[in-house]
Amino acid sequence: MSDATTLTPSASAWLDAVRWNADGLVPAIAQEQGSKDVLMVAWMNREALAATAARGEAVYWSRSRGRLWHKGEESGHVQRVHEIRLDCDQDVVLLVVTQQGHAGDPGTIACHTGRHSCFFSRLEGGAWLVVEPVLKDPERIYR
Amino acid sequence: MSDATTLTPSASAWLDAVRWNADGLVPAIAQEQGSKDVLMVAWMNREALAATAARGEAVYWSRSRGRLWHKGEESGHVQRVHEIRLDCDQDVVLLVVTQQGHAGDPGTIACHTGRHSCFFSRLEGGAWLVVEPVLKDPERIYR
Repeated sequence: MSDATTLTPSASAWLDAVRWNADGLVPAIAQEQGSKDVLMVAWMNREALAATAARGEAVYWSRSRGRLWHKGEESGHVQRVHEIRLDCDQDVVLLVVTQQGHAGDPGTIACHTGRHSCFFSRLEGGAWLVVEPVLKDPERIYR
Repeated sequence: MSDATTLTPSASAWLDAVRWNADGLVPAIAQEQGSKDVLMVAWMNREALAATAARGEAVYWSRSRGRLWHKGEESGHVQRVHEIRLDCDQDVVLLVVTQQGHAGDPGTIACHTGRHSCFFSRLEGGAWLVVEPVLKDPERIYR
């Protein structure tokens, strides 16, 4: 696939089909191929989605940093993208990914807390309970 | 679980933990138990999340209709909720659900188009391709 900056107008019709919100963003879900676990949700702008398709790796828009965020650029936890799906309202993206990591990691890690999935809190008896273990100390991930 | 309207302040601490956006909403993903398919994403406000927990069935906030939307109220496609999860940023909810329907339906249907999942379009060669069949004519769902 071509780089985002070289897309011709007609080649970017699929990007025009997305219904970006007032901030030019849509939520993007990363679902792990195989386990089918929902790993995380982040945001994408047009550039991020174009870059994701072009690279075959997840590129999000970091709202806190105000820039494109190639997932794994610091942690090494790159997400290889197998499928990009769009929902019926054209305002949510679903990525089917392989979550990459490092040799010796005890499982795949998508979350910055060192957990497999960002959805590690479960509602139990009126409180959020942490139900997934930290697989790797974040200090060892971001150093 | 108690009804949303009878929650005491301390009993709603879990709702305070959610980081609602400027419109008082968070995205909520419905994932099917068993198949682990991502069925849909809709929005919830505080009332919708409280109602979901209280009823054990998915209740969303319909942005188009500006009111609570008990999923299935018209279609019969109720979602029984087994788990409610929250992500590390506390701004996305994940529901693990059983997608209910009608006797004789050829599979579970979450999408208003009559498809299993709302994520029926896949990016292929620079275009969105519909890759999931309509299981039931929407005219037979909404009548």
